[in-house]
Amino acid sequence: MRSHILGRIALDQERLAQDLAHLAAVPTVEEEYDEFSNGFWKNIPLYNASGASDDRLYRDLHGAPAQPTGHVEHVPYLNEIITTVFDVERLQMARTRNLKNAVVIPHRDFVELDRGLDQYFRTHVMLEDSPLAFHSDDDTVIHMRAGEIWYLDAAAVHSAVNFGEFSRQSLCVDLAFDGAFDEKEAFADASVYTSDVSPAIHERKPFTKEREAGILALSGVIGRENFRDILFLLSKVHYTYDVHPSETYEWLVAVSKEAGDDKMVEKAERIRDFAIGARAFGERFSLTTW
Amino acid sequence: MRSHILGRIALDQERLAQDLAHLAAVPTVEEEYDEFSNGFWKNIPLYNASGASDDRLYRDLHGAPAQPTGHVEHVPYLNEIITTVFDVERLQMARTRNLKNAVVIPHRDFVELDRGLDQYFRTHVMLEDSPLAFHSDDDTVIHMRAGEIWYLDAAAVHSAVNFGEFSRQSLCVDLAFDGAFDEKEAFADASVYTSDVSPAIHERKPFTKEREAGILALSGVIGRENFRDILFLLSKVHYTYDVHPSETYEWLVAVSKEAGDDKMVEKAERIRDFAIGARAFGERFSLTTW
Repeated sequence: MRSHILGRIALDQERLAQDLAHLAAVPTVEEEYDEFSNGFWKNIPLYNASGASDDRLYRDLHGAPAQPTGHVEHVPYLNEIITTVFDVERLQMARTRNLKNAVVIPHRDFVELDRGLDQYFRTHVMLEDSPLAFHSDDDTVIHMRAGEIWYLDAAAVHSAVNFGEFSRQSLCVDLAFDGAFDEKEAFADASVYTSDVSPAIHERKPFTKEREAGILALSGVIGRENFRDILFLLSKVHYTYDVHPSETYEWLVAVSKEAGDDKMVEKAERIRDFAIGARAFGERFSLTTW
Repeated sequence: MRSHILGRIALDQERLAQDLAHLAAVPTVEEEYDEFSNGFWKNIPLYNASGASDDRLYRDLHGAPAQPTGHVEHVPYLNEIITTVFDVERLQMARTRNLKNAVVIPHRDFVELDRGLDQYFRTHVMLEDSPLAFHSDDDTVIHMRAGEIWYLDAAAVHSAVNFGEFSRQSLCVDLAFDGAFDEKEAFADASVYTSDVSPAIHERKPFTKEREAGILALSGVIGRENFRDILFLLSKVHYTYDVHPSETYEWLVAVSKEAGDDKMVEKAERIRDFAIGARAFGERFSLTTW
Protein backbone atom coordinates (compact mmCIF):
# COMPACT_ATOMS: atom_id res chain seq x y z
CA MET A 1 0.00 0.00 0.00
CA ARG A 2 1.31 3.39 -0.97
CA SER A 3 -1.69 5.21 0.50
CA HIS A 4 -0.90 6.78 3.86
CA ILE A 5 -1.96 9.37 6.38
CA LEU A 6 -0.68 12.89 5.64
CA GLY A 7 -2.04 14.58 8.69
CA ARG A 8 -4.99 15.12 10.96
CA ILE A 9 -7.20 18.09 11.67
CA ALA A 10 -9.56 18.75 14.54
CA LEU A 11 -13.05 19.09 13.09
CA ASP A 12 -15.39 21.78 14.37
CA GLN A 13 -18.49 19.60 14.72
CA GLU A 14 -20.90 22.51 14.90
CA ARG A 15 -19.71 24.17 11.70
CA LEU A 16 -19.33 20.79 10.01
CA ALA A 17 -22.93 19.86 10.83
CA GLN A 18 -24.21 22.96 9.05
CA ASP A 19 -22.24 22.14 5.92
CA LEU A 20 -23.31 18.49 5.99
CA ALA A 21 -26.95 19.60 6.21
CA HIS A 22 -26.51 21.55 2.98
CA LEU A 23 -24.91 18.57 1.26
CA ALA A 24 -27.77 16.32 2.35
CA ALA A 25 -30.28 18.74 0.79
CA VAL A 26 -28.55 18.80 -2.61
CA PRO A 27 -30.55 16.58 -4.96
CA THR A 28 -29.05 13.18 -5.72
CA VAL A 29 -28.45 12.79 -9.45
CA GLU A 30 -27.01 10.24 -11.80
CA GLU A 31 -23.28 10.28 -11.24
CA GLU A 32 -20.57 10.76 -13.82
CA TYR A 33 -18.99 7.46 -12.85
CA ASP A 34 -22.15 5.51 -12.05
CA GLU A 35 -20.92 2.36 -13.78
CA PHE A 36 -18.37 2.01 -10.99
CA SER A 37 -20.77 1.87 -8.08
CA ASN A 38 -24.07 0.60 -6.80
CA GLY A 39 -26.12 1.72 -3.83
CA PHE A 40 -26.04 5.32 -2.64
CA TRP A 41 -23.10 7.27 -4.03
CA LYS A 42 -23.32 11.04 -4.04
CA ASN A 43 -20.57 13.36 -5.22
CA ILE A 44 -20.89 17.13 -4.99
CA PRO A 45 -18.30 19.26 -6.80
CA LEU A 46 -16.99 22.23 -4.80
CA TYR A 47 -14.12 23.08 -7.14
CA ASN A 48 -13.81 21.78 -10.69
CA ALA A 49 -12.60 22.60 -14.18
CA SER A 50 -15.61 24.67 -15.22
CA GLY A 51 -17.08 26.07 -12.01
CA ALA A 52 -20.43 24.48 -12.96
CA SER A 53 -22.29 23.03 -9.96
CA ASP A 54 -23.25 19.89 -11.85
CA ASP A 55 -19.90 19.18 -13.53
CA ARG A 56 -18.66 15.96 -11.93
CA LEU A 57 -16.09 14.92 -14.53
CA TYR A 58 -12.47 14.87 -13.43
CA ARG A 59 -10.17 16.26 -16.12
CA ASP A 60 -6.70 17.65 -16.46
CA LEU A 61 -6.20 21.33 -15.75
CA HIS A 62 -3.23 23.12 -17.22
CA GLY A 63 -2.31 26.69 -16.38
CA ALA A 64 -5.35 27.57 -14.27
CA PRO A 65 -6.39 26.10 -10.91
CA ALA A 66 -9.88 24.72 -10.36
CA GLN A 67 -12.87 27.06 -10.14
CA PRO A 68 -15.33 27.23 -7.23
CA THR A 69 -18.87 25.98 -7.93
CA GLY A 70 -22.11 27.39 -6.61
CA HIS A 71 -22.03 24.90 -3.73
CA VAL A 72 -19.00 26.52 -2.10
CA GLU A 73 -20.89 29.41 -0.55
CA HIS A 74 -23.15 26.95 1.26
CA VAL A 75 -20.29 25.00 2.82
CA PRO A 76 -18.07 27.75 4.31
CA TYR A 77 -16.36 25.39 6.72
CA LEU A 78 -15.36 22.89 4.06
CA ASN A 79 -14.19 25.75 1.87
CA GLU A 80 -12.05 26.99 4.74
CA ILE A 81 -10.49 23.53 5.06
CA ILE A 82 -9.76 23.37 1.34
CA THR A 83 -8.28 26.85 1.11
CA THR A 84 -6.31 26.96 4.35
CA VAL A 85 -5.03 23.37 4.52
CA PHE A 86 -4.15 22.77 0.87
CA ASP A 87 -2.12 24.64 -1.71
CA VAL A 88 -4.98 25.80 -3.91
CA GLU A 89 -2.62 26.69 -6.74
CA ARG A 90 -2.31 22.96 -7.30
CA LEU A 91 -6.02 22.24 -6.93
CA GLN A 92 -7.55 20.13 -9.70
CA MET A 93 -10.87 19.27 -8.11
CA ALA A 94 -12.50 19.24 -4.70
CA ARG A 95 -15.71 17.36 -4.02
CA THR A 96 -17.58 15.72 -1.23
CA ARG A 97 -18.24 12.03 -1.63
CA ASN A 98 -20.69 9.92 0.25
CA LEU A 99 -21.27 6.20 0.11
CA LYS A 100 -24.04 4.30 1.92
CA ASN A 101 -24.85 0.63 1.51
CA ALA A 102 -22.65 0.82 -1.52
CA VAL A 103 -19.46 -0.38 -3.11
CA VAL A 104 -17.28 1.17 -5.77
CA ILE A 105 -15.76 -1.60 -7.91
CA PRO A 106 -11.97 -2.01 -7.88
CA HIS A 107 -10.49 0.36 -10.44
CA ARG A 108 -7.58 2.59 -11.28
CA ASP A 109 -8.00 6.33 -11.80
CA PHE A 110 -6.22 8.84 -14.00
CA VAL A 111 -5.32 6.19 -16.61
CA GLU A 112 -7.30 8.08 -19.26
CA LEU A 113 -5.50 11.37 -18.57
CA ASP A 114 -2.32 13.03 -19.82
CA ARG A 115 0.05 13.35 -16.90
CA GLY A 116 2.32 10.64 -15.57
CA LEU A 117 0.35 8.75 -12.92
CA ASP A 118 2.67 9.92 -10.15
CA GLN A 119 1.82 13.55 -10.85
CA TYR A 120 -1.75 13.11 -9.54
CA PHE A 121 -2.14 13.58 -5.83
CA ARG A 122 -5.51 12.54 -4.43
CA THR A 123 -6.34 13.26 -0.82
CA HIS A 124 -9.32 12.39 1.34
CA VAL A 125 -10.27 14.33 4.43
CA MET A 126 -12.66 12.03 6.25
CA LEU A 127 -15.48 14.10 7.75
CA GLU A 128 -17.51 11.37 9.44
CA ASP A 129 -16.51 8.13 11.09
CA SER A 130 -18.73 5.43 9.66
CA PRO A 131 -17.54 2.21 11.31
CA LEU A 132 -18.43 -0.09 8.41
CA ALA A 133 -16.82 2.07 5.71
CA PHE A 134 -13.47 1.06 4.20
CA HIS A 135 -11.07 1.84 1.39
CA SER A 136 -8.79 -0.64 -0.26
CA ASP A 137 -5.45 -0.05 -1.95
CA ASP A 138 -3.77 -3.05 -3.54
CA ASP A 139 -3.02 -5.43 -0.68
CA THR A 140 -4.46 -3.42 2.20
CA VAL A 141 -7.85 -2.40 3.55
CA ILE A 142 -8.02 0.72 5.66
CA HIS A 143 -10.61 2.47 7.75
CA MET A 144 -10.25 6.23 7.56
CA ARG A 145 -11.12 7.96 10.81
CA ALA A 146 -12.77 11.37 11.02
CA GLY A 147 -10.26 14.21 10.77
CA GLU A 148 -7.59 12.14 9.06
CA ILE A 149 -6.12 13.46 5.82
CA TRP A 150 -5.11 10.62 3.52
CA TYR A 151 -3.08 10.37 0.39
CA LEU A 152 -4.99 7.75 -1.61
CA ASP A 153 -3.04 6.06 -4.34
CA ALA A 154 -5.83 6.22 -6.90
CA ALA A 155 -3.53 5.07 -9.70
CA ALA A 156 -3.31 1.68 -7.97
CA VAL A 157 -6.19 -0.81 -7.96
CA HIS A 158 -8.44 0.52 -5.24
CA SER A 159 -12.03 0.48 -4.15
CA ALA A 160 -14.35 1.86 -1.48
CA VAL A 161 -17.26 0.39 0.41
CA ASN A 162 -19.75 1.19 3.11
CA PHE A 163 -21.44 -1.94 4.44
CA GLY A 164 -23.70 0.16 6.62
CA GLU A 165 -26.38 2.79 6.31
CA PHE A 166 -24.45 5.45 8.20
CA SER A 167 -23.42 8.50 6.22
CA ARG A 168 -19.73 8.45 5.28
CA GLN A 169 -19.03 11.92 4.02
CA SER A 170 -15.53 12.56 2.77
CA LEU A 171 -13.89 15.65 1.29
CA CYS A 172 -11.83 14.52 -1.68
CA VAL A 173 -9.21 17.08 -2.73
CA ASP A 174 -7.30 16.35 -5.93
CA LEU A 175 -4.03 18.14 -6.58
CA ALA A 176 -1.55 17.70 -9.39
CA PHE A 177 2.14 18.45 -9.78
CA ASP A 178 4.45 18.93 -12.71
CA GLY A 179 7.69 17.06 -12.21
CA ALA A 180 9.19 15.83 -8.94
CA PHE A 181 7.64 17.06 -5.70
CA ASP A 182 7.66 16.59 -1.97
CA GLU A 183 4.22 15.71 -0.62
CA LYS A 184 4.54 18.50 1.94
CA GLU A 185 4.03 20.81 -1.02
CA ALA A 186 0.40 19.75 -1.11
CA PHE A 187 -0.23 21.87 1.95
CA ALA A 188 -0.61 25.58 2.45
CA ASP A 189 -0.32 24.97 6.17
CA ALA A 190 2.78 22.80 6.62
CA SER A 191 1.98 22.28 10.30
CA VAL A 192 -0.87 19.97 9.28
CA TYR A 193 1.59 17.52 7.76
CA THR A 194 2.66 14.65 9.96
CA SER A 195 3.92 11.14 9.44
CA ASP A 196 3.36 9.79 12.93
CA VAL A 197 -0.30 8.74 12.82
CA SER A 198 -0.79 4.97 12.61
CA PRO A 199 -3.52 3.97 10.19
CA ALA A 200 -6.46 1.81 11.22
CA ILE A 201 -5.78 -1.27 9.12
CA HIS A 202 -8.83 -3.50 8.72
CA GLU A 203 -8.06 -7.09 9.69
CA ARG A 204 -9.26 -9.61 7.15
CA LYS A 205 -9.82 -13.36 7.26
CA PRO A 206 -7.50 -15.66 5.32
CA PHE A 207 -8.67 -16.34 1.78
CA THR A 208 -9.05 -20.10 1.73
CA LYS A 209 -9.41 -22.67 -1.05
CA GLU A 210 -12.85 -23.37 0.36
CA ARG A 211 -13.85 -19.73 -0.01
CA GLU A 212 -12.47 -19.66 -3.54
CA ALA A 213 -14.50 -22.77 -4.39
CA GLY A 214 -17.61 -21.09 -3.01
CA ILE A 215 -16.98 -18.08 -5.24
CA LEU A 216 -16.39 -20.18 -8.33
CA ALA A 217 -19.65 -22.01 -7.63
CA LEU A 218 -21.37 -18.75 -8.61
CA SER A 219 -21.23 -20.23 -12.12
CA GLY A 220 -24.44 -22.04 -11.12
CA VAL A 221 -26.22 -18.77 -10.45
CA ILE A 222 -24.73 -16.13 -12.74
CA GLY A 223 -26.74 -14.99 -15.75
CA ARG A 224 -27.07 -11.84 -17.81
CA GLU A 225 -29.90 -10.74 -15.55
CA ASN A 226 -27.65 -10.71 -12.46
CA PHE A 227 -24.21 -10.19 -14.01
CA ARG A 228 -24.05 -6.67 -12.57
CA ASP A 229 -25.10 -7.90 -9.11
CA ILE A 230 -22.45 -10.62 -9.17
CA LEU A 231 -19.79 -8.04 -10.08
CA PHE A 232 -20.72 -5.92 -7.07
CA LEU A 233 -20.87 -8.98 -4.84
CA LEU A 234 -17.38 -10.02 -5.95
CA SER A 235 -16.11 -6.46 -5.49
CA LYS A 236 -16.78 -6.76 -1.77
CA VAL A 237 -14.97 -10.06 -1.17
CA HIS A 238 -11.54 -8.49 -0.64
CA TYR A 239 -12.88 -6.38 2.24
CA THR A 240 -13.59 -9.52 4.25
CA TYR A 241 -10.90 -11.86 2.94
CA ASP A 242 -7.23 -11.20 2.42
CA VAL A 243 -7.06 -11.25 -1.36
CA HIS A 244 -6.15 -8.65 -3.97
CA PRO A 245 -9.05 -6.51 -5.26
CA SER A 246 -8.13 -7.23 -8.88
CA GLU A 247 -9.12 -10.88 -8.29
CA THR A 248 -12.69 -9.58 -8.55
CA TYR A 249 -12.33 -9.63 -12.32
CA GLU A 250 -10.52 -12.97 -12.53
CA TRP A 251 -13.42 -14.56 -10.67
CA LEU A 252 -15.96 -12.81 -12.87
CA VAL A 253 -14.24 -14.08 -16.01
CA ALA A 254 -13.85 -17.61 -14.60
CA VAL A 255 -17.45 -17.83 -13.42
CA SER A 256 -18.72 -16.51 -16.77
CA LYS A 257 -16.62 -19.09 -18.62
CA GLU A 258 -17.85 -21.94 -16.44
CA ALA A 259 -21.42 -20.78 -17.05
CA GLY A 260 -20.68 -21.14 -20.76
CA ASP A 261 -21.93 -17.76 -21.93
CA ASP A 262 -19.48 -16.13 -24.35
CA LYS A 263 -21.19 -12.75 -24.12
CA MET A 264 -20.69 -12.75 -20.36
CA VAL A 265 -17.05 -13.75 -20.75
CA GLU A 266 -16.53 -10.91 -23.21
CA LYS A 267 -18.24 -8.38 -20.94
CA ALA A 268 -16.28 -9.60 -17.93
CA GLU A 269 -13.01 -9.13 -19.80
CA ARG A 270 -14.10 -5.71 -21.06
CA ILE A 271 -15.09 -4.44 -17.64
CA ARG A 272 -11.78 -5.72 -16.27
CA ASP A 273 -9.82 -3.88 -18.94
CA PHE A 274 -11.99 -0.80 -18.50
CA ALA A 275 -11.68 -0.65 -14.71
CA ILE A 276 -8.10 -1.69 -14.06
CA GLY A 277 -6.56 -1.54 -17.54
CA ALA A 278 -6.31 1.39 -19.92
CA ARG A 279 -9.57 3.12 -20.79
CA ALA A 280 -9.95 6.07 -23.13
CA PHE A 281 -11.16 9.44 -21.88
CA GLY A 282 -14.92 9.58 -21.78
CA GLU A 283 -15.29 5.85 -22.47
CA ARG A 284 -18.45 4.38 -21.03
CA PHE A 285 -19.54 0.90 -20.26
CA SER A 286 -22.92 -0.78 -19.76
CA LEU A 287 -23.30 -3.71 -17.41
CA THR A 288 -26.90 -4.42 -18.37
CA THR A 289 -27.04 -4.09 -22.18
CA TRP A 290 -26.33 -7.29 -24.09
CA MET B 1 -52.54 -14.47 -10.81
CA ARG B 2 -55.39 -12.24 -9.77
CA SER B 3 -53.77 -9.12 -11.24
CA HIS B 4 -55.28 -8.16 -14.58
CA ILE B 5 -55.73 -5.36 -17.07
CA LEU B 6 -58.63 -3.02 -16.28
CA GLY B 7 -58.36 -0.81 -19.31
CA ARG B 8 -56.14 1.18 -21.56
CA ILE B 9 -55.76 4.86 -22.25
CA ALA B 10 -54.10 6.69 -25.11
CA LEU B 11 -51.28 8.74 -23.66
CA ASP B 12 -50.66 12.26 -24.91
CA GLN B 13 -46.89 11.98 -25.29
CA GLU B 14 -46.32 15.73 -25.45
CA ARG B 15 -48.17 16.51 -22.22
CA LEU B 16 -46.74 13.39 -20.58
CA ALA B 17 -43.16 14.46 -21.42
CA GLN B 18 -43.66 17.77 -19.61
CA ASP B 19 -44.91 16.02 -16.48
CA LEU B 20 -42.11 13.45 -16.58
CA ALA B 21 -39.57 16.27 -16.82
CA HIS B 22 -40.92 17.69 -13.57
CA LEU B 23 -40.74 14.29 -11.87
CA ALA B 24 -37.14 13.85 -13.00
CA ALA B 25 -36.22 17.18 -11.42
CA VAL B 26 -37.71 16.32 -8.01
CA PRO B 27 -34.82 15.42 -5.69
CA THR B 28 -34.35 11.74 -4.97
CA VAL B 29 -34.67 11.05 -1.26
CA GLU B 30 -34.58 8.10 1.06
CA GLU B 31 -37.79 6.21 0.53
CA GLU B 32 -40.34 5.20 3.11
CA TYR B 33 -40.01 1.56 2.11
CA ASP B 34 -36.30 1.53 1.26
CA GLU B 35 -35.71 -1.81 2.97
CA PHE B 36 -37.74 -3.41 0.19
CA SER B 37 -35.61 -2.26 -2.73
CA ASN B 38 -32.15 -1.66 -4.04
CA GLY B 39 -30.99 0.40 -7.00
CA PHE B 40 -32.91 3.47 -8.15
CA TRP B 41 -36.42 3.63 -6.70
CA LYS B 42 -38.18 6.97 -6.67
CA ASN B 43 -41.72 7.52 -5.45
CA ILE B 44 -43.39 10.92 -5.64
CA PRO B 45 -46.70 11.38 -3.81
CA LEU B 46 -49.36 13.28 -5.77
CA TYR B 47 -52.26 12.52 -3.41
CA ASN B 48 -51.84 11.20 0.12
CA ALA B 49 -53.26 11.26 3.62
CA SER B 50 -51.75 14.57 4.68
CA GLY B 51 -51.22 16.56 1.48
CA ALA B 52 -47.52 16.89 2.41
CA SER B 53 -45.20 16.65 -0.61
CA ASP B 54 -42.75 14.42 1.23
CA ASP B 55 -45.24 12.08 2.92
CA ARG B 56 -44.67 8.69 1.28
CA LEU B 57 -46.32 6.47 3.88
CA TYR B 58 -49.41 4.57 2.78
CA ARG B 59 -52.05 4.55 5.47
CA ASP B 60 -55.75 3.97 5.85
CA LEU B 61 -58.09 6.86 5.21
CA HIS B 62 -61.54 6.88 6.70
CA GLY B 63 -64.19 9.48 5.91
CA ALA B 64 -62.05 11.80 3.80
CA PRO B 65 -60.41 11.11 0.43
CA ALA B 66 -56.71 11.71 -0.15
CA GLN B 67 -55.35 15.26 -0.37
CA PRO B 68 -53.34 16.69 -3.29
CA THR B 69 -49.68 17.43 -2.61
CA GLY B 70 -47.62 20.32 -3.91
CA HIS B 71 -46.43 18.18 -6.81
CA VAL B 72 -49.87 18.02 -8.41
CA GLU B 73 -49.78 21.50 -9.93
CA HIS B 74 -46.58 20.56 -11.77
CA VAL B 75 -48.05 17.43 -13.34
CA PRO B 76 -51.36 18.66 -14.79
CA TYR B 77 -51.63 15.79 -17.24
CA LEU B 78 -51.18 13.10 -14.60
CA ASN B 79 -53.64 14.93 -12.38
CA GLU B 80 -56.14 14.91 -15.23
CA ILE B 81 -55.68 11.15 -15.59
CA ILE B 82 -56.21 10.60 -11.87
CA THR B 83 -59.27 12.82 -11.58
CA THR B 84 -61.04 11.92 -14.83
CA VAL B 85 -60.29 8.19 -15.04
CA PHE B 86 -60.71 7.19 -11.39
CA ASP B 87 -63.40 7.73 -8.79
CA VAL B 88 -61.52 10.19 -6.59
CA GLU B 89 -63.99 9.70 -3.74
CA ARG B 90 -62.31 6.33 -3.22
CA LEU B 91 -58.78 7.63 -3.63
CA GLN B 92 -56.34 6.60 -0.87
CA MET B 93 -53.06 7.56 -2.46
CA ALA B 94 -51.68 8.41 -5.89
CA ARG B 95 -47.98 8.46 -6.61
CA THR B 96 -45.54 8.04 -9.42
CA ARG B 97 -43.07 5.22 -9.06
CA ASN B 98 -39.90 4.68 -10.97
CA LEU B 99 -37.46 1.80 -10.87
CA LYS B 100 -34.13 1.62 -12.71
CA ASN B 101 -31.54 -1.11 -12.34
CA ALA B 102 -33.50 -2.13 -9.31
CA VAL B 103 -35.61 -4.80 -7.74
CA VAL B 104 -38.26 -4.63 -5.04
CA ILE B 105 -38.12 -7.80 -2.95
CA PRO B 106 -41.17 -10.10 -2.98
CA HIS B 107 -43.63 -8.86 -0.39
CA ARG B 108 -47.28 -8.44 0.49
CA ASP B 109 -48.84 -5.04 1.06
CA PHE B 110 -51.65 -3.83 3.30
CA VAL B 111 -51.04 -6.58 5.88
CA GLU B 112 -50.30 -3.98 8.55
CA LEU B 113 -53.53 -2.07 7.90
CA ASP B 114 -57.09 -2.29 9.17
CA ARG B 115 -59.32 -3.20 6.28
CA GLY B 116 -59.89 -6.68 4.90
CA LEU B 117 -57.25 -7.27 2.24
CA ASP B 118 -59.87 -7.45 -0.52
CA GLN B 119 -61.00 -3.90 0.22
CA TYR B 120 -57.72 -2.42 -1.09
CA PHE B 121 -57.65 -1.78 -4.81
CA ARG B 122 -54.23 -0.93 -6.22
CA THR B 123 -53.92 0.16 -9.83
CA HIS B 124 -50.92 0.96 -11.99
CA VAL B 125 -51.13 3.15 -15.08
CA MET B 126 -47.91 2.42 -16.92
CA LEU B 127 -46.57 5.66 -18.40
CA GLU B 128 -43.43 4.38 -20.12
CA ASP B 129 -42.65 1.10 -21.80
CA SER B 130 -39.32 -0.07 -20.43
CA PRO B 131 -38.70 -3.42 -22.12
CA LEU B 132 -36.72 -4.97 -19.24
CA ALA B 133 -39.20 -3.98 -16.52
CA PHE B 134 -41.54 -6.57 -15.03
CA HIS B 135 -43.98 -7.17 -12.20
CA SER B 136 -44.66 -10.49 -10.58
CA ASP B 137 -47.81 -11.70 -8.88
CA ASP B 138 -47.71 -15.17 -7.32
CA ASP B 139 -47.15 -17.57 -10.22
CA THR B 140 -46.98 -15.06 -13.07
CA VAL B 141 -44.57 -12.43 -14.39
CA ILE B 142 -46.05 -9.66 -16.47
CA HIS B 143 -44.75 -6.80 -18.55
CA MET B 144 -47.00 -3.75 -18.30
CA ARG B 145 -47.16 -1.81 -21.53
CA ALA B 146 -47.51 1.97 -21.70
CA GLY B 147 -51.11 3.11 -21.41
CA GLU B 148 -52.34 -0.06 -19.72
CA ILE B 149 -54.24 0.28 -16.46
CA TRP B 150 -53.65 -2.71 -14.20
CA TYR B 151 -55.23 -3.99 -11.07
CA LEU B 152 -52.24 -5.26 -9.11
CA ASP B 153 -53.01 -7.75 -6.39
CA ALA B 154 -50.68 -6.20 -3.83
CA ALA B 155 -52.04 -8.40 -1.04
CA ALA B 156 -50.49 -11.40 -2.83
CA VAL B 157 -46.75 -12.05 -2.88
CA HIS B 158 -45.53 -9.70 -5.58
CA SER B 159 -42.42 -7.90 -6.69
CA ALA B 160 -41.16 -5.49 -9.34
CA VAL B 161 -37.92 -5.25 -11.25
CA ASN B 162 -36.22 -3.25 -13.95
CA PHE B 163 -33.16 -5.04 -15.30
CA GLY B 164 -32.31 -2.05 -17.47
CA GLU B 165 -31.37 1.58 -17.11
CA PHE B 166 -34.43 2.90 -18.96
CA SER B 167 -36.86 4.94 -16.96
CA ARG B 168 -39.98 3.00 -16.01
CA GLN B 169 -42.37 5.58 -14.71
CA SER B 170 -45.70 4.32 -13.45
CA LEU B 171 -48.68 6.10 -11.94
CA CYS B 172 -49.85 4.05 -8.96
CA VAL B 173 -53.39 4.89 -7.88
CA ASP B 174 -54.66 3.25 -4.69
CA LEU B 175 -58.36 3.10 -4.00
CA ALA B 176 -60.26 1.42 -1.19
CA PHE B 177 -63.79 0.17 -0.79
CA ASP B 178 -66.00 -0.63 2.16
CA GLY B 179 -67.81 -3.91 1.63
CA ALA B 180 -68.49 -5.70 -1.63
CA PHE B 181 -67.81 -3.82 -4.86
CA ASP B 182 -67.61 -4.20 -8.59
CA GLU B 183 -64.24 -3.17 -9.96
CA LYS B 184 -65.97 -0.91 -12.49
CA GLU B 185 -66.72 1.28 -9.48
CA ALA B 186 -63.04 2.25 -9.43
CA PHE B 187 -63.61 4.42 -12.46
CA ALA B 188 -65.20 7.81 -12.93
CA ASP B 189 -65.19 7.16 -16.65
CA ALA B 190 -66.71 3.70 -17.09
CA SER B 191 -65.79 3.70 -20.78
CA VAL B 192 -62.14 3.18 -19.80
CA TYR B 193 -62.99 -0.19 -18.31
CA THR B 194 -62.43 -3.19 -20.54
CA SER B 195 -61.71 -6.84 -20.03
CA ASP B 196 -60.56 -7.68 -23.57
CA VAL B 197 -56.88 -6.69 -23.49
CA SER B 198 -54.51 -9.68 -23.33
CA PRO B 199 -51.63 -9.15 -20.93
CA ALA B 200 -48.01 -9.46 -22.01
CA ILE B 201 -46.98 -12.49 -19.95
CA HIS B 202 -43.21 -12.82 -19.58
CA GLU B 203 -42.06 -16.29 -20.61
CA ARG B 204 -39.69 -17.86 -18.12
CA LYS B 205 -37.29 -20.78 -18.27
CA PRO B 206 -38.10 -23.99 -16.37
CA PHE B 207 -36.73 -23.99 -12.84
CA THR B 208 -34.47 -27.04 -12.85
CA LYS B 209 -32.83 -29.07 -10.10
CA GLU B 210 -29.52 -27.89 -11.52
CA ARG B 211 -30.52 -24.25 -11.08
CA GLU B 212 -31.73 -24.95 -7.57
CA ALA B 213 -28.38 -26.59 -6.75
CA GLY B 214 -26.59 -23.51 -8.11
CA ILE B 215 -28.65 -21.29 -5.84
CA LEU B 216 -28.07 -23.44 -2.77
CA ALA B 217 -24.33 -23.33 -3.48
CA LEU B 218 -24.51 -19.65 -2.47
CA SER B 219 -23.87 -21.03 1.02
CA GLY B 220 -20.19 -20.93 0.00
CA VAL B 221 -20.34 -17.20 -0.62
CA ILE B 222 -22.96 -15.74 1.71
CA GLY B 223 -21.81 -13.76 4.72
CA ARG B 224 -23.13 -10.93 6.86
CA GLU B 225 -21.28 -8.51 4.61
CA ASN B 226 -23.22 -9.58 1.51
CA PHE B 227 -26.45 -10.92 3.05
CA ARG B 228 -28.39 -7.98 1.63
CA ASP B 229 -26.88 -8.45 -1.83
CA ILE B 230 -27.77 -12.15 -1.81
CA LEU B 231 -31.36 -11.30 -0.87
CA PHE B 232 -31.67 -8.96 -3.85
CA LEU B 233 -29.98 -11.50 -6.11
CA LEU B 234 -32.44 -14.18 -5.02
CA SER B 235 -35.36 -11.77 -5.44
CA LYS B 236 -34.64 -11.64 -9.17
CA VAL B 237 -34.51 -15.39 -9.80
CA HIS B 238 -38.26 -15.80 -10.31
CA TYR B 239 -38.21 -13.28 -13.16
CA THR B 240 -36.00 -15.58 -15.23
CA TYR B 241 -37.11 -19.00 -13.94
CA ASP B 242 -40.60 -20.33 -13.41
CA VAL B 243 -40.70 -20.49 -9.63
CA HIS B 244 -42.78 -18.74 -6.98
CA PRO B 245 -41.39 -15.42 -5.66
CA SER B 246 -41.79 -16.56 -2.04
CA GLU B 247 -39.07 -19.17 -2.69
CA THR B 248 -36.66 -16.22 -2.42
CA TYR B 249 -36.92 -16.50 1.36
CA GLU B 250 -36.79 -20.29 1.53
CA TRP B 251 -33.49 -20.17 -0.36
CA LEU B 252 -32.19 -17.38 1.86
CA VAL B 253 -33.01 -19.40 4.98
CA ALA B 254 -31.53 -22.61 3.53
CA VAL B 255 -28.33 -20.94 2.35
CA SER B 256 -27.90 -19.19 5.71
CA LYS B 257 -28.39 -22.51 7.53
CA GLU B 258 -25.88 -24.29 5.31
CA ALA B 259 -23.39 -21.48 5.95
CA GLY B 260 -23.83 -22.21 9.66
CA ASP B 261 -24.49 -18.67 10.86
CA ASP B 262 -27.42 -18.57 13.30
CA LYS B 263 -27.68 -14.80 13.11
CA MET B 264 -28.12 -15.00 9.37
CA VAL B 265 -30.74 -17.72 9.73
CA GLU B 266 -32.61 -15.59 12.22
CA LYS B 267 -32.45 -12.52 10.00
CA ALA B 268 -33.54 -14.53 6.95
CA GLU B 269 -36.56 -15.83 8.84
CA ARG B 270 -37.38 -12.38 10.15
CA ILE B 271 -37.19 -10.70 6.74
CA ARG B 272 -39.40 -13.48 5.34
CA ASP B 273 -41.99 -12.94 8.04
CA PHE B 274 -41.71 -9.18 7.66
CA ALA B 275 -42.08 -9.16 3.88
CA ILE B 276 -44.64 -11.88 3.21
CA GLY B 277 -46.01 -12.59 6.69
CA ALA B 278 -47.71 -10.24 9.11
CA ARG B 279 -45.79 -7.09 10.00
CA ALA B 280 -46.96 -4.40 12.40
CA PHE B 281 -47.66 -0.86 11.19
CA GLY B 282 -44.49 1.19 11.08
CA GLU B 283 -42.27 -1.83 11.74
CA ARG B 284 -38.81 -1.45 10.27
CA PHE B 285 -36.10 -3.88 9.44
CA SER B 286 -32.36 -3.58 8.92
CA LEU B 287 -30.53 -5.88 6.53
CA THR B 288 -27.08 -4.65 7.50
CA THR B 289 -27.12 -4.35 11.30
CA TRP B 290 -26.05 -7.48 13.18
